[in-house]
Amino acid sequence: MVDRLVVIGGDAGGMTAASQARRRRDADDLEIVVFERSGFTSYAACGIPYFVGDVVQDPDDLVARTPEEHRRRGIDARIHHEVSSIDVSDHAVVVRDLHAETEHRQHYDDLLVATGAVPRRPDIPGIDAEGVFGVQTLDDGMAVRRFVDEQHPETAVVIGGGYIGLEMAEALVRRGLHVSLLEQLPQPMSTLDPDMGALIADAMRGMGIDVVLETAARAVELDGRRVRAVATDGASLPADIVVLGLGVTPNGELAAAAGIEVGETGGIVTDDRMETRSARVWAAGDCVEVRHRVTGKPGAFALGTHANKEGRIVGINVTGGDARFPGVIGTAITKVCELEVGRTGLTESEAGEAGFDAVAATIETTTRASYYPDSAPITVKMVAERGTGRLLGAQIVGREGAGKRIDTTAVAVWNEMAAGDIANVDLSYAPPLSPLWDAVLVAARRVAEMV
Amino acid sequence: MVDRLVVIGGDAGGMTAASQARRRRDADDLEIVVFERSGFTSYAACGIPYFVGDVVQDPDDLVARTPEEHRRRGIDARIHHEVSSIDVSDHAVVVRDLHAETEHRQHYDDLLVATGAVPRRPDIPGIDAEGVFGVQTLDDGMAVRRFVDEQHPETAVVIGGGYIGLEMAEALVRRGLHVSLLEQLPQPMSTLDPDMGALIADAMRGMGIDVVLETAARAVELDGRRVRAVATDGASLPADIVVLGLGVTPNGELAAAAGIEVGETGGIVTDDRMETRSARVWAAGDCVEVRHRVTGKPGAFALGTHANKEGRIVGINVTGGDARFPGVIGTAITKVCELEVGRTGLTESEAGEAGFDAVAATIETTTRASYYPDSAPITVKMVAERGTGRLLGAQIVGREGAGKRIDTTAVAVWNEMAAGDIANVDLSYAPPLSPLWDAVLVAARRVAEMV
Repeated sequence: MVDRLVVIGGDAGGMTAASQARRRRDADDLEIVVFERSGFTSYAACGIPYFVGDVVQDPDDLVARTPEEHRRRGIDARIHHEVSSIDVSDHAVVVRDLHAETEHRQHYDDLLVATGAVPRRPDIPGIDAEGVFGVQTLDDGMAVRRFVDEQHPETAVVIGGGYIGLEMAEALVRRGLHVSLLEQLPQPMSTLDPDMGALIADAMRGMGIDVVLETAARAVELDGRRVRAVATDGASLPADIVVLGLGVTPNGELAAAAGIEVGETGGIVTDDRMETRSARVWAAGDCVEVRHRVTGKPGAFALGTHANKEGRIVGINVTGGDARFPGVIGTAITKVCELEVGRTGLTESEAGEAGFDAVAATIETTTRASYYPDSAPITVKMVAERGTGRLLGAQIVGREGAGKRIDTTAVAVWNEMAAGDIANVDLSYAPPLSPLWDAVLVAARRVAEMV
Repeated sequence: MVDRLVVIGGDAGGMTAASQARRRRDADDLEIVVFERSGFTSYAACGIPYFVGDVVQDPDDLVARTPEEHRRRGIDARIHHEVSSIDVSDHAVVVRDLHAETEHRQHYDDLLVATGAVPRRPDIPGIDAEGVFGVQTLDDGMAVRRFVDEQHPETAVVIGGGYIGLEMAEALVRRGLHVSLLEQLPQPMSTLDPDMGALIADAMRGMGIDVVLETAARAVELDGRRVRAVATDGASLPADIVVLGLGVTPNGELAAAAGIEVGETGGIVTDDRMETRSARVWAAGDCVEVRHRVTGKPGAFALGTHANKEGRIVGINVTGGDARFPGVIGTAITKVCELEVGRTGLTESEAGEAGFDAVAATIETTTRASYYPDSAPITVKMVAERGTGRLLGAQIVGREGAGKRIDTTAVAVWNEMAAGDIANVDLSYAPPLSPLWDAVLVAARRVAEMV
């Protein structure tokens, strides 16, 4: 008898699992059905700001594999199909065909829940008005772009200075809008320590963005049905368009309603094989919570990289393999204006909250030898545990070539290296690519002197 | 009584040690005398090709600290002073003042030998002719540049396709010369496997360099006293200037003559505190041999990064501290034409020679998300041990942003990570800086499938 794998959600987590399972078991052995609510599969959600900003022109470029391509590879990918409930005791899901407006029940042997995440929405008047956009799915991205292309907004307010918020602010500046960024905290990008976040605020202001800090949105003001401004405790900020940049929360509702365990983070709980507490129900992607290797605690980290890795692990495990997800260390990177911004492990604040006795050091050097043309500033902050010297985290802000150095520190955090040992690692050096003491070594040496 | 530290050689190893020692002990407690044969201290030898190529215009830019600056910091730096012999039993050196043409005997309590390296010279007729240059010291670099500026050579032959050879070939192309690169092996850059070296050869040819492989220089042909061509078994290659790019060997002669132990590599033997087998005689920089952490064997690795780290360790240890040099893993990087080229650990060939049962995988992907502008090719080769999966080495060739990814793999090699584990590490991703699966992860996954 042919087994059936049903996948809810046709983006990174779901489709990576489906593809991996397909490679490991043939169609006459395993049927794979994917239900995707939107019209797209396997798209690069992280690319949306660049599509809105017209850095990427064709939305098809963001689609790694269309439903047709998946079907040709033996995966029954059904778009515009929404799963409305899961019955774990009966091993079935109820599926709604959004075009035909019909509903049917689909049995599964294995089920993968890959329902992604939803943008955080502040609970303020007017938030559901026309012209207010979350940015999570490719549909969202196309809606924002269409609005910009057709309605020609002149002013924008981005509520929230997280990754997507910053990237969208820059995208809208590229499109000629006057942009205000509204952030409740003293600095944008709260995943960095405030001193590092300040570098980002400066860069954004340098690009003409009105960065409004320590200020909350109180209401979206309307002109008829359309957004006109965002009210704050201070000034009202003009806005022909509002974009939500407050980050996302795991979309665990469908799972929770079915009795599949969801953690405090809102993410679905799985073991390291990505199986939920309900047998033969798996979960992957932005809808799950995973273990942070430094704190040991679960967290929700909405990132395509994790979704892909987790999906791959599910694809292996549902086909009889044994793959394990080793957890995350909170690595992230982005490009804001001309700055590359990376982080991994814990910030100084996070280390304190997690109960570590931590020290921190910040250094500034250059991306290349100082005498080499286009040598540019790079600032590295490292956080280490007092006593052991263990590297707990790193943050990097700098110009071209700076950002990817975060991966060097990520591997060090992953291996629980002591800062003093990192300072002696054999890293590469050539004048066009690094000063003699690479920024990572300088920072490690500095923080090692403090532990 | 004031102790005296005598340092032979005023570049990276010597001056880093002197500076570190000075920071740790005051001048009324420790006298520090440095003898440097040339007219420069603390210069960036690695920057010489960029000075010759006119990427850097002022040789002073390559000098991190002048003799005067060192003296102001309490280091008695004496340029144009050559140590002609060491008497370890009497704790003294014989020093020749090259300007005054006088000689004196200098007592030391601690001695640091930091005599650097010398360019390899093929033993062929005419090699000592005018117009043939090794490139090791800043004096060498200035001599090459002066020759190019004043003699206006039109053709050049670079003998040997090592790092300096490739960098000098490119520099001379920049200066408008027609350049031939002569390499005995099937590919330039023999520190890479041949398949990766082939990518370099292609790039060099694309820049108009005549890459002549599997061909040895037989003689330097003269026109009077001046070089005219380089004879090979095949064609004679026109050369108004000849540059040696065969790499360097440790300059251990002075030490060996004094009975200080020198290893098979030609480098001075030290313990991990950088002390030689002769008590209170230390060594650092290109003149020493150090342990390769992957093979466990000693090797000579002439690189400013090692010299600086070793010098710093000597500076700490001669002043009562206890610092240890942990060895190297053969990390190196360069920029050749538009390619960034990095390596770490062992190549496939080296792994075989070292007795490892090794597998290798090569992948090609892009430096950024494929849909993002200026996304460029990156090729990564990884070598792993069969059975354990341990990463033994990595090589990277690619365009802008590719090279420094070698550091990520270097930390993985350093920690003896298995390729399968590396494939799951939380590395950074954002479309302007990386595809979703970073090249390092893709390569690790591929080689993990083979072990």
